[in-house]
Amino acid sequence: MFKIAVDMMGGDDAPDIVLEAVEKAVNDFDDLEILLFGDQAQCTINHPRVHVRHTTEAISMEDEPVRAIKRKKDSSMVKMAEAVKNGEATACVSAGNTGALMSAGLFIVGRLPGVSRPALVVTLPTVKGNGVVFLDVGANADAKAEHLYQNAILGHIYAQNVRNIEQPRVALLNIGTEAQKGNSLTKQAYALLKDSDTLHFVGNIEAKSILEDDADVIVTDGYTGNMILKNLEGIAKSFGKIIKGTLMSKFKNKIALLIMKKDIKAIAKQLDYSEYGGSVLLGLDGVVVKAHGSSNAKAFYSAIRQAKIASDTKIVDIMREKVGEKDE
Amino acid sequence: MFKIAVDMMGGDDAPDIVLEAVEKAVNDFDDLEILLFGDQAQCTINHPRVHVRHTTEAISMEDEPVRAIKRKKDSSMVKMAEAVKNGEATACVSAGNTGALMSAGLFIVGRLPGVSRPALVVTLPTVKGNGVVFLDVGANADAKAEHLYQNAILGHIYAQNVRNIEQPRVALLNIGTEAQKGNSLTKQAYALLKDSDTLHFVGNIEAKSILEDDADVIVTDGYTGNMILKNLEGIAKSFGKIIKGTLMSKFKNKIALLIMKKDIKAIAKQLDYSEYGGSVLLGLDGVVVKAHGSSNAKAFYSAIRQAKIASDTKIVDIMREKVGEKDE
Repeated sequence: MFKIAVDMMGGDDAPDIVLEAVEKAVNDFDDLEILLFGDQAQCTINHPRVHVRHTTEAISMEDEPVRAIKRKKDSSMVKMAEAVKNGEATACVSAGNTGALMSAGLFIVGRLPGVSRPALVVTLPTVKGNGVVFLDVGANADAKAEHLYQNAILGHIYAQNVRNIEQPRVALLNIGTEAQKGNSLTKQAYALLKDSDTLHFVGNIEAKSILEDDADVIVTDGYTGNMILKNLEGIAKSFGKIIKGTLMSKFKNKIALLIMKKDIKAIAKQLDYSEYGGSVLLGLDGVVVKAHGSSNAKAFYSAIRQAKIASDTKIVDIMREKVGEKDE
Repeated sequence: MFKIAVDMMGGDDAPDIVLEAVEKAVNDFDDLEILLFGDQAQCTINHPRVHVRHTTEAISMEDEPVRAIKRKKDSSMVKMAEAVKNGEATACVSAGNTGALMSAGLFIVGRLPGVSRPALVVTLPTVKGNGVVFLDVGANADAKAEHLYQNAILGHIYAQNVRNIEQPRVALLNIGTEAQKGNSLTKQAYALLKDSDTLHFVGNIEAKSILEDDADVIVTDGYTGNMILKNLEGIAKSFGKIIKGTLMSKFKNKIALLIMKKDIKAIAKQLDYSEYGGSVLLGLDGVVVKAHGSSNAKAFYSAIRQAKIASDTKIVDIMREKVGEKDE
C-alpha cells in the first residue's frame, strides 16, 4: 500500500479539482491510500482509503514562502510535509505556492545527505514522444557548477528509475554545442560533467534542440530552466493566438479546422504538460511533487500518479545511496 | 547617399545569397551605395553603386573569433569593419561567424565612450504584430547588473529612433513578475532600473509573455537572451514537425491544409525572423549588423535595409550623446 499525503487547499481551483483527482486516483489504484490535508468541511469524498486530516490554515500564492512555512504551522501544506517527514506517507502532492512547497521540502522533509541543493525536475514532451527529463526548473536560481553536476546525477537516477532508461544520455543546456561555449557557469559545469564516470555525458545541447530527442536528461540552473519552461508554455499559447486569429477569421478555414479537429486534439495531448504530471523536487528525504498552480483535475491526478510511481521505484532510497557514494 | 560595407564571404550560402540581396538592395534604394568585400572573381554584380574590394581571406564558422580577427588581416570581415572604422561606410553587414563579427565590432569598429559592453539586439515578432526589441542575445554571456542597465538604455534609444516609439516600455526578463523575484543578477538589475529617470521601466516580464506585446523593449543578459532566442527558433520548428507528422499522414488533413495554405503562409510571414532583418550590435562607434548564418537572400536583404535605417536615424550619434550623458 502506498500512502500519499495531499494538500487539499493549494492551487487556483482548490479544493474542487484536488477532490476530483483524489477520488479518481483511489478508484484507479487499489494499492493507494491518501492522507488528505485541509478543511474537513469542504471535503466531499467518502472513501475507505481517503483519510481527511483537518487543518485550519492555508498558504496562499501571495505568501512569502519561508515565512509562510515557519508561521502557518497548521496549514495543509505544512501538515502534509510533516506526514512525509514522520514516515506516515512516502510522498506528497500540492498545487499550491511553489516557493512555499520548496521551503516545506527543504525545511520539513529535509535534504538527503550529500545533496547541497534540491532541484525541481519536469519531463517535457518531445517530437518523437519519448519525453526528456529537464532540471532544475526553479529550485536554485543562483547555481554553481557543482550544483549543476549534482543535478545531472539526480536527473540520471530519475531517468533510470522512473523513466526506465538504462543509460540515459545527459546533456548540458548551453548557448553553443562546442565545449568552450557558454558563460562561466556552463564552462565550469562542462569540465565537471565530461570527467564523470557515472554519467553518459553527451555534451552541450542548445535550447533549439530541447524537444528533439537528442538527450534523455537536460541539465541547467534554476533560473535558466524556469525561463525555458515558461517560454515553452508561453510560446505555444502565443503561436496558438496568432494561428487562431488569422485562420478563424475565414469560413473556409473553420471548415478545414473542423476536418482536422480530432488530429489537432491528439497533437495537443502529445504536447500537454498535464499528461506528464507535475514537477518533482529531487534531493529530498521523501517525494515532493508540485502540480501546476493552474492545474485541472487531470493534471493533479497525473501528479498523484507520478508521486506513486516515484514511491514505487524507491527513488529516494536509491538517491540516498548513490549521492552518498559520491561523498566518500 | 548611404554607404554600407558588406561581407561577401560570410554565411552558409555565401557569396550567392549575399550577391542576390545586394543587387536587390541597390535596385530598391537609390540612395544606397555598397562596398562589397570578398573574392572579386566570385562577384557577378555589375552596378555603378556596388564597389567590389578584393580580399584574399575568409573567416569560417569554426574559426576562434578573437584570433581570426587578429590574424586574418585580409579577410572580408576585417576589411569590412575597417571601412566603418575609417569612415568610408556608416554601417556593415555580415552573415559570418557571430563571435568573430562581435570581435571585429569591439576591436576594429570600437566601443562608444561610456559603453562597457556592447549588446546584440533583435526585434522579435509579436502576437499583435508590433514587434519587441530584445537584447542582449549573445554579446555578453557573463553580464553584471550595470550591463543590464546599459542594455536597457541602448534598447530604449534603439526603440525610440529605429522603431519610432516615443516612450518605449522597458521590461526586465525574469522568472517572476514580482520585484523580489529572480537570481542575484536580475534582483540587482531591477533595483537599478526602477530608479532610472530616463527609462519608462514597467517591471519584470516572464518568458511566457515575450511575444504578448506587454513591453517594447525586453532586457536580459547575453546568455539568457541567446538561450531564449534559440528556444523560440527551435520550438517553432519542433512544433511544426509534430503537427506535420500527425496531420500529413491523413488524406483529409492534406485537403484541409490545402484550403488554409495561403493563410498559413501569412502566419509564417508574421513569425518570420528574416522579415525583421538581422541582429544589431549596439554600443559601437558604427552600425554592425549580423544577418542569420543560415540566411536566405531575403533575410540578408532585410539586414542591409536594417543597416540603412540605422544609419538614416543616426542612432550611433544619438547613443554617443545619450550614453555619454550618463557618465557625467
